[in-house]
Amino acid sequence: MENRDISQAVISRLPRYLRFLGELKDRGIERISSQELSGLMHVTASQIRQDLNNFGGFGQQGYGYNVDYLYDEIGRILGLDKRHDLIIVGAGNLGQALANYMNFDRRGFHTRGLFDSDPHLQGVLVRNMPVRPMSELEGFIKENSIDIAVLTIPKEAAVEVADRLIRCGIKGIWNFAHVDLEVPDNVRVENVHLSDSLMKLSYNLRDLDI
Amino acid sequence: MENRDISQAVISRLPRYLRFLGELKDRGIERISSQELSGLMHVTASQIRQDLNNFGGFGQQGYGYNVDYLYDEIGRILGLDKRHDLIIVGAGNLGQALANYMNFDRRGFHTRGLFDSDPHLQGVLVRNMPVRPMSELEGFIKENSIDIAVLTIPKEAAVEVADRLIRCGIKGIWNFAHVDLEVPDNVRVENVHLSDSLMKLSYNLRDLDI
Repeated sequence: MENRDISQAVISRLPRYLRFLGELKDRGIERISSQELSGLMHVTASQIRQDLNNFGGFGQQGYGYNVDYLYDEIGRILGLDKRHDLIIVGAGNLGQALANYMNFDRRGFHTRGLFDSDPHLQGVLVRNMPVRPMSELEGFIKENSIDIAVLTIPKEAAVEVADRLIRCGIKGIWNFAHVDLEVPDNVRVENVHLSDSLMKLSYNLRDLDI
Repeated sequence: MENRDISQAVISRLPRYLRFLGELKDRGIERISSQELSGLMHVTASQIRQDLNNFGGFGQQGYGYNVDYLYDEIGRILGLDKRHDLIIVGAGNLGQALANYMNFDRRGFHTRGLFDSDPHLQGVLVRNMPVRPMSELEGFIKENSIDIAVLTIPKEAAVEVADRLIRCGIKGIWNFAHVDLEVPDNVRVENVHLSDSLMKLSYNLRDLDI
């Protein structure tokens, strides 16, 4: 199946399906009805059926969904069957937190190196990897076939660093810097703007007072 | 204006408007047309006009938007004119990164304490605050009128800790644990599921290969 058939709205819900299916797998559950999944996920059974119909003709009447199969299929659609090699640019607390997060490895995202412009961080070991100086960025990316860069640096530096990364072939940027990056058509950016998320919480709390 | 009049879709775009307006303010720009803002933000001028019409009758023909006024108004709608007192539960790298992020203070979010169950972290200073044991959680929340808790702990512990937090009056949870929390109606949760974001990047990279 071509993933271009699936709407972005469905795609953005897939990681959550994957999480719940993973938990069912861990509990040894082999099949589940859309009603049961609906109860777990607090999504209507009709929404679940519509979403999962994108993945072909399982979910049979009276049987439900095959948990293992659906888990694998969603993972494949999300591209989790492919290996990705990452670097983290910005080895402060956030960069180190991401480097130490083992679950990314389980999903095929392998952190290969960390970089920072701060001389005090040079050589510091994070998960057995030394923090490297920015001067080694281009060489390291080429030698290690890095395809994704995680940007955990202040916004002031992010635009220039993103340009350097793209010039040496980085195709995916996971951007934690608080700025929108302008990138060519053949580069993908996924933003995590933490302040935006906190402001949404603030808005929803304001709503509570009324 | 009651914020209930504004759709969630508009609300989720407000932090980005605020960011761009803040940059215009920093550059000393006092007014901007929807066309200019459109060019900066890569959103249609019509979308901008529709979104900002929610904030009353400025954006006059031939004048554009008053940057300062619009910035303040959006901030007010987002509840950024109110003070929030936070604790961070989970003082690992991610918790420490969030504690050190000064921009949250500028927005009225004040981190007052950090907690961790790991005895090795007790007393460690993060931004001049000692990491406290979980046994002090309830007392600290009450004494310091804490209204928001940031959860940067593994998912295994998150559900139980969230219950403790809610029982002592926490109204907002900024949840980084990879689990959906079930909370009463008078509690708001904003999730940051980092793995989900990385999977979306993976999907969009897959799309590049086709």
